[in-house]
Amino acid sequence: MAQSHSSSINYFGSANKVVYEGKDSTNPLAFKYYNPQEVIGGKTLKEHLRFSIAYWHTFTADGTDVFGAATMQRPWDHYKGMDLAKMRVEAAFEMFEKLDAPFFAFHDRDIAPEGSTLKETNQNLDMIMGMIKDYMRNSGVKLLWNTANMFTNPRFVHGAATSCNADVFAYAAAQVKKGLETAKELGAENYVFWGGREGYETLLNTDLKFELDNLARFMHMAVDYAKEIGYTGQFLIEPKPKEPTTHQYDTDAATTIAFLKQYGLDNHFKLNLEANHATLAGHTFEHELRMARVHGLLGSVDANQGHPLLGWDTDEFPTDLYSTTLAMYEILQNGGLGSGGLNFDAKVRRSSFEPDDLIYAHIAGMDAFARGLKVAHKLIEDRVFEDVIQHRYRSFTEGIGLEIIEGRANFHTLEQYALNHKSIKNESGRQEKLKAILNQYILEV
Amino acid sequence: MAQSHSSSINYFGSANKVVYEGKDSTNPLAFKYYNPQEVIGGKTLKEHLRFSIAYWHTFTADGTDVFGAATMQRPWDHYKGMDLAKMRVEAAFEMFEKLDAPFFAFHDRDIAPEGSTLKETNQNLDMIMGMIKDYMRNSGVKLLWNTANMFTNPRFVHGAATSCNADVFAYAAAQVKKGLETAKELGAENYVFWGGREGYETLLNTDLKFELDNLARFMHMAVDYAKEIGYTGQFLIEPKPKEPTTHQYDTDAATTIAFLKQYGLDNHFKLNLEANHATLAGHTFEHELRMARVHGLLGSVDANQGHPLLGWDTDEFPTDLYSTTLAMYEILQNGGLGSGGLNFDAKVRRSSFEPDDLIYAHIAGMDAFARGLKVAHKLIEDRVFEDVIQHRYRSFTEGIGLEIIEGRANFHTLEQYALNHKSIKNESGRQEKLKAILNQYILEV
Amino acid sequence: MAQSHSSSINYFGSANKVVYEGKDSTNPLAFKYYNPQEVIGGKTLKEHLRFSIAYWHTFTADGTDVFGAATMQRPWDHYKGMDLAKMRVEAAFEMFEKLDAPFFAFHDRDIAPEGSTLKETNQNLDMIMGMIKDYMRNSGVKLLWNTANMFTNPRFVHGAATSCNADVFAYAAAQVKKGLETAKELGAENYVFWGGREGYETLLNTDLKFELDNLARFMHMAVDYAKEIGYTGQFLIEPKPKEPTTHQYDTDAATTIAFLKQYGLDNHFKLNLEANHATLAGHTFEHELRMARVHGLLGSVDANQGHPLLGWDTDEFPTDLYSTTLAMYEILQNGGLGSGGLNFDAKVRRSSFEPDDLIYAHIAGMDAFARGLKVAHKLIEDRVFEDVIQHRYRSFTEGIGLEIIEGRANFHTLEQYALNHKSIKNESGRQEKLKAILNQYILEV
Amino acid sequence: MAQSHSSSINYFGSANKVVYEGKDSTNPLAFKYYNPQEVIGGKTLKEHLRFSIAYWHTFTADGTDVFGAATMQRPWDHYKGMDLAKMRVEAAFEMFEKLDAPFFAFHDRDIAPEGSTLKETNQNLDMIMGMIKDYMRNSGVKLLWNTANMFTNPRFVHGAATSCNADVFAYAAAQVKKGLETAKELGAENYVFWGGREGYETLLNTDLKFELDNLARFMHMAVDYAKEIGYTGQFLIEPKPKEPTTHQYDTDAATTIAFLKQYGLDNHFKLNLEANHATLAGHTFEHELRMARVHGLLGSVDANQGHPLLGWDTDEFPTDLYSTTLAMYEILQNGGLGSGGLNFDAKVRRSSFEPDDLIYAHIAGMDAFARGLKVAHKLIEDRVFEDVIQHRYRSFTEGIGLEIIEGRANFHTLEQYALNHKSIKNESGRQEKLKAILNQYILEV
Ligand SMILES: [Co+2]
Ligand SMILES: [Co+2]
Ligand SMILES: [Co+2]
Ligand SMILES: [Co+2]
Ligand SMILES: [Co+2]
Ligand SMILES: [Co+2]
Ligand SMILES: [Co+2]
Ligand SMILES: [Co+2]
Repeated sequence: MAQSHSSSINYFGSANKVVYEGKDSTNPLAFKYYNPQEVIGGKTLKEHLRFSIAYWHTFTADGTDVFGAATMQRPWDHYKGMDLAKMRVEAAFEMFEKLDAPFFAFHDRDIAPEGSTLKETNQNLDMIMGMIKDYMRNSGVKLLWNTANMFTNPRFVHGAATSCNADVFAYAAAQVKKGLETAKELGAENYVFWGGREGYETLLNTDLKFELDNLARFMHMAVDYAKEIGYTGQFLIEPKPKEPTTHQYDTDAATTIAFLKQYGLDNHFKLNLEANHATLAGHTFEHELRMARVHGLLGSVDANQGHPLLGWDTDEFPTDLYSTTLAMYEILQNGGLGSGGLNFDAKVRRSSFEPDDLIYAHIAGMDAFARGLKVAHKLIEDRVFEDVIQHRYRSFTEGIGLEIIEGRANFHTLEQYALNHKSIKNESGRQEKLKAILNQYILEV
Repeated sequence: MAQSHSSSINYFGSANKVVYEGKDSTNPLAFKYYNPQEVIGGKTLKEHLRFSIAYWHTFTADGTDVFGAATMQRPWDHYKGMDLAKMRVEAAFEMFEKLDAPFFAFHDRDIAPEGSTLKETNQNLDMIMGMIKDYMRNSGVKLLWNTANMFTNPRFVHGAATSCNADVFAYAAAQVKKGLETAKELGAENYVFWGGREGYETLLNTDLKFELDNLARFMHMAVDYAKEIGYTGQFLIEPKPKEPTTHQYDTDAATTIAFLKQYGLDNHFKLNLEANHATLAGHTFEHELRMARVHGLLGSVDANQGHPLLGWDTDEFPTDLYSTTLAMYEILQNGGLGSGGLNFDAKVRRSSFEPDDLIYAHIAGMDAFARGLKVAHKLIEDRVFEDVIQHRYRSFTEGIGLEIIEGRANFHTLEQYALNHKSIKNESGRQEKLKAILNQYILEV
Repeated sequence: MAQSHSSSINYFGSANKVVYEGKDSTNPLAFKYYNPQEVIGGKTLKEHLRFSIAYWHTFTADGTDVFGAATMQRPWDHYKGMDLAKMRVEAAFEMFEKLDAPFFAFHDRDIAPEGSTLKETNQNLDMIMGMIKDYMRNSGVKLLWNTANMFTNPRFVHGAATSCNADVFAYAAAQVKKGLETAKELGAENYVFWGGREGYETLLNTDLKFELDNLARFMHMAVDYAKEIGYTGQFLIEPKPKEPTTHQYDTDAATTIAFLKQYGLDNHFKLNLEANHATLAGHTFEHELRMARVHGLLGSVDANQGHPLLGWDTDEFPTDLYSTTLAMYEILQNGGLGSGGLNFDAKVRRSSFEPDDLIYAHIAGMDAFARGLKVAHKLIEDRVFEDVIQHRYRSFTEGIGLEIIEGRANFHTLEQYALNHKSIKNESGRQEKLKAILNQYILEV
Repeated sequence: MAQSHSSSINYFGSANKVVYEGKDSTNPLAFKYYNPQEVIGGKTLKEHLRFSIAYWHTFTADGTDVFGAATMQRPWDHYKGMDLAKMRVEAAFEMFEKLDAPFFAFHDRDIAPEGSTLKETNQNLDMIMGMIKDYMRNSGVKLLWNTANMFTNPRFVHGAATSCNADVFAYAAAQVKKGLETAKELGAENYVFWGGREGYETLLNTDLKFELDNLARFMHMAVDYAKEIGYTGQFLIEPKPKEPTTHQYDTDAATTIAFLKQYGLDNHFKLNLEANHATLAGHTFEHELRMARVHGLLGSVDANQGHPLLGWDTDEFPTDLYSTTLAMYEILQNGGLGSGGLNFDAKVRRSSFEPDDLIYAHIAGMDAFARGLKVAHKLIEDRVFEDVIQHRYRSFTEGIGLEIIEGRANFHTLEQYALNHKSIKNESGRQEKLKAILNQYILEV
């Protein structure tokens, strides 16, 4: 039986359960900042952060890149097919336990290999799902979200829901149908769409409008089917501006919001925002979070980071304390992520190919977000930016400013005011001072 | 009297009226491809292209850059204040005539200097407007659009409609009120908003939601006021992703569409799309045009180009034939630009400081767009891409594809189809072949 | 026997020998601008352009990308191991003949698979080399260059000559030793080094100086060994700024020149410059060519192009006529490429997966460079830019300018001149006018 | 008398002398991390960091940007011409004292306005120099470096030493001659060249080789003249890749090294490296420092930072602790900067327009570098990266590795080794673990 098997094998041998040892620990296999049970603002760090481990990068990625073959050394490498799939489940739950991770996330094809027919593929899925369900029950680990891989197989070369080939649309529909059934079966808190190859290579051969219409049709069908089967998890859509296609349709938060509104989908979807996709789109991570937040559409987070000097999706483990702090600031201001979580959509570098690197990398990311949470919480508690902002916009709380806000002003009254009002006095935005304060909070919290 | 004056001075001495001499001409002051009276697809090139000259870059820009002082040598340099403003009007209409340009465009502060009070500023505006109105009547040149400069004066350091200072909002309102009156007075075919400093420097001191709300309030007031005074020109909004602010709110077409929909403004506004802003946002120019087109929101075009290796708004005169061809393709497919036009929002390089460079540069741009129009027209006439696309998406014209399009499919029927349908056959997208054809059309039309 | 085999199979069935049909041809499998036998400036186009086909992209690439599996449909797909290697040779020479390509280029691992030991790998190589030698003799096709793939195999995860592991350095040495023997055996006109993984991921674990020293040691050994075996082809080094490593050592032309000079290698190496690597480094292609040219180090060219909006090496077939024109301008000014050539280091898009796309793509690239050659030749013949430049710098042909050039000036004489010389008069750089002329030449040559 | 004047005026009224109050201080006008007298590794922080204030950004910049007019509010704004120049000197030395800054740096035109002739300009310079010399003597503040502004005046529109106009070359020579005399007179520890407009806009009108030759000629003349007058400060050259020209000749460290070696200038120059220029060139700041360091050419530092998402030189005050830490790591490994220093080539944001912002910004930068120094010092003391690197490259300390390093290996011996050596075992690069350690050091030092 798989579960008993699990207790005997030790995939990540050198690492015992990773525990919190505090900021002075020199143990590379301990948390320095992430103390899951520590309470801050009425919730434990574990409840705040809702960490999730990405099945694909952690259990299936092999280190292949455009110029090189697999480098990753994994204890399950010598298995194949369904045996390999099963070993990965064991390894995954061993890691979830060692890292005390409350959630995980997967694409359908991460957990089980394709068969020679769709039917066989679904049977493979069913078998592994059964195994996963047992492990989930025994471990208490939950599924943050699942999604469908509709980009690896060559059938998706021109996209899935936006393919020029109706057969591909149909196949994708069957795949998402199964995905929603999986979500219901495993109690996934969310179901995610990310662009995959929903985009275009060149407008010379592309009917953009047709493809956007089809993408919306597809999503409406998904919403309908979820309703039909009583799946009540949150639908999420994950923006990305480019890669793999030259131009991905769900470019960034604002573009995706435009799409959702255009097609009447904004009541059914929220956004799953990834740090690296934000920067590829020319935005900071916190901008994307803020944008979604102010539209009431912040759903979940793919917690990683890009390299500021590289033009592609490097999906690095998040270690930048500025980014984790400002991300947690937005999340706290949002009242948390609801059914969402912080999913490590991050891969160890190709040159970090030993199994322990997976542990080191997650510790690095979890500690960085734990620190970010504490800093953000203290910033909010001290109303550092809130007071600055309240003071900065105070002219809108009285007089002409209040008239504007309350809809009592118009171009006539405003012109009259401007004509009579001699001089305008602005105040410094104080950016440098605020950055120094942020540094001090990061260092001293 | 200014007008008679005009006939005696000759600001662009070496250039007579620029005429079409055809592709073999070696006269640098002649058109090689732009023959205004040539008819193509039932309209003259002049009617198709609706060229507009930008007052700011051409008559007021002095070549200052971040590292250097003014270089431009202009015959009107020795004038000051209102005298300078008047000389510029004369020079402008001389150039419009020499280039046979049907339109021009300006910011309020381009045509008349600020006075010491808003009242005086408006008086300055009125005086020059009167002069411009005469010149317009005499020359037949029309105003494509006007707009308000709400970014140069330090009062706009934190934005205009999105300033944290209510006094600035009021001032901006007064300025746009006057702008709409100007538009009505001069018969402007459009009224443009471009971001200016409507954006933010850092989220640390910014209430993004508040600022977006105010931006929308401002635009609604503008719509109301236009209605009140009976100004019926088209409102346009011009996206740009960054610069001058770190993050401009009207980032790109999709972001602006999201904003317009969010705030119920999409019936009142269309987009004025600039080539250089498209590329700064990570999109091709044609992508932005397509995006606006499929939303029915393509209003007008700022015709320039960026440098693909420089990360700021270089606003170069458009000479890239690929870009002009694909832009004209979108415009023709849109049935033209309606009340919009091709406005040269382009500046001669700082090192092209002689008056004749202004003529050379406009010729370069007008010829490039004329060639682009001809190529695009022939591509459409020959249905080069249309046939490719029709064939490529043909699976949606029958069977399961048609069911999808007509709303008769759902996840059940599609899964059934996918389970029964053995193999999926895709066809090449033929990108390289299409690019070779595009080259041949550009060269041989 | 392989050769006879070749004549019976037809890998690229729909394409006969591609012939020149001229600019009005609508045959997608004909040249529109590349007439190999056409003479221009005393040489045929074939002699000028020295086209080379890249074995890797064309015969071994399968369309895999970071997010997807192989898409390419190749007639030789069903073979494996050495059989596959042989089929590819047949297909390759069929294509060389169909395209009338005078050269090809390969990495060692492109032509023959690795064995289980280095010895076996070398035996595999020897076998295929023998076959290739026969084909070369029969066809007259020559080897532009060969190189060693020292980046795909996981042993090179930390680099080859710059690996932190001495065993890897040794392995790489053995591989290049064999490569030089191959070059001699097949009469390769050049031997190429391109960075592969010679770079670093993070300075946190890197001894940059040590690695650069080792890189130089390695190259000196290669130079020594070539001398020893009497291989007299030209050594080339191909710069690239990033990808696969975060920071490649041979970043761009200037960096590589600094390296060659620093380590006394500049007499032994020239540069192989790739268009897409130039733009990734923030330079235009023509800048890199010019930089190498003025240092007497322009060796050969990898003819492709990047996507201006994508931040990675897209290696697209070259179709941009501006780029091909300005590249050919540099090459003609260099007196040609000597032993170098124009190697199509370009891959068909993943969605251009049919065999014919390989033909279409090469036609697109060959036509674009042929047109570029003709335009550049005419520009030089007419001294378009030469006259501009001669006039622009004329102040250095007499007076104080000549004193400067001839070394007769110093800060004393120059200060004296400046103090006495009242006003400085500059002239416009005329960039817009020159771009319009370039457009006219591209269109009308 | 100016000096007594100085004691009576108080330009930065709200700020007294900024003192170190430690990490828990909430006083925005105090240092939290920079304790000038604190000793670390045998030197005070003041001696380690050698902070310098940039005259231009701090005392002359007015907040103008491409889209807007001056915003800066300065107590000396109401003065003009030479009076303004004098007030700035007073204000400068008040600030140097308040910040306890040991150094400053200027361009010639920062300190004194141009006159109507070069002679008058030099007289202006002489007058202010006299005043500065007094202030320097009284305050003990020293001149880190001076340089010549050869980019603002329109005469330099086509460059200075690389201008196509010999008169401009002569003028620039006169200006640098005066600059070297100034350096000698004021005891400048270094004399800096930064590119200014030494670059090109388009190759279409540029003789790149001619311009590079002239640039070298110019620098040799400067070296000769310094020798002649006995100026013994260090010559520095500051790379930048683009802006203001499209392509700056001194692109980055490696390019500049190539130039210096090519023209025999490498014994006379070191590099002045700026953080923001590094990132514009596609490198990290620490890469540029390392590159210069391993060539023995690390001279001085322009301490600022760019915005990772903006494509131009934002010259922000340095607050990123990762960057300051890794920069100080390189500087400590270099044994310090010698005659160089950390010059804040940084400007307050246009929206930080109040005088106090200048103080806040310098505190932010000084604290960030002080913290970076402490972290770097501890990292080195603990041999964190040194031990990793020593272990990582250990295979080169014996056997075949040692043979390679000692020059006893060649392709024969290496091939023999590789053929006999069965398997290659690499070890993980441990990037994620190292980044987590770096975070811990930054937070806990
Ligand atoms: Co993601
Ligand atoms: Co990603
Ligand atoms: Co514009
Ligand atoms: Co622009
Ligand atoms: Co290449
Ligand atoms: Co490449
Ligand atoms: Co600097
Ligand atoms: Co800078």
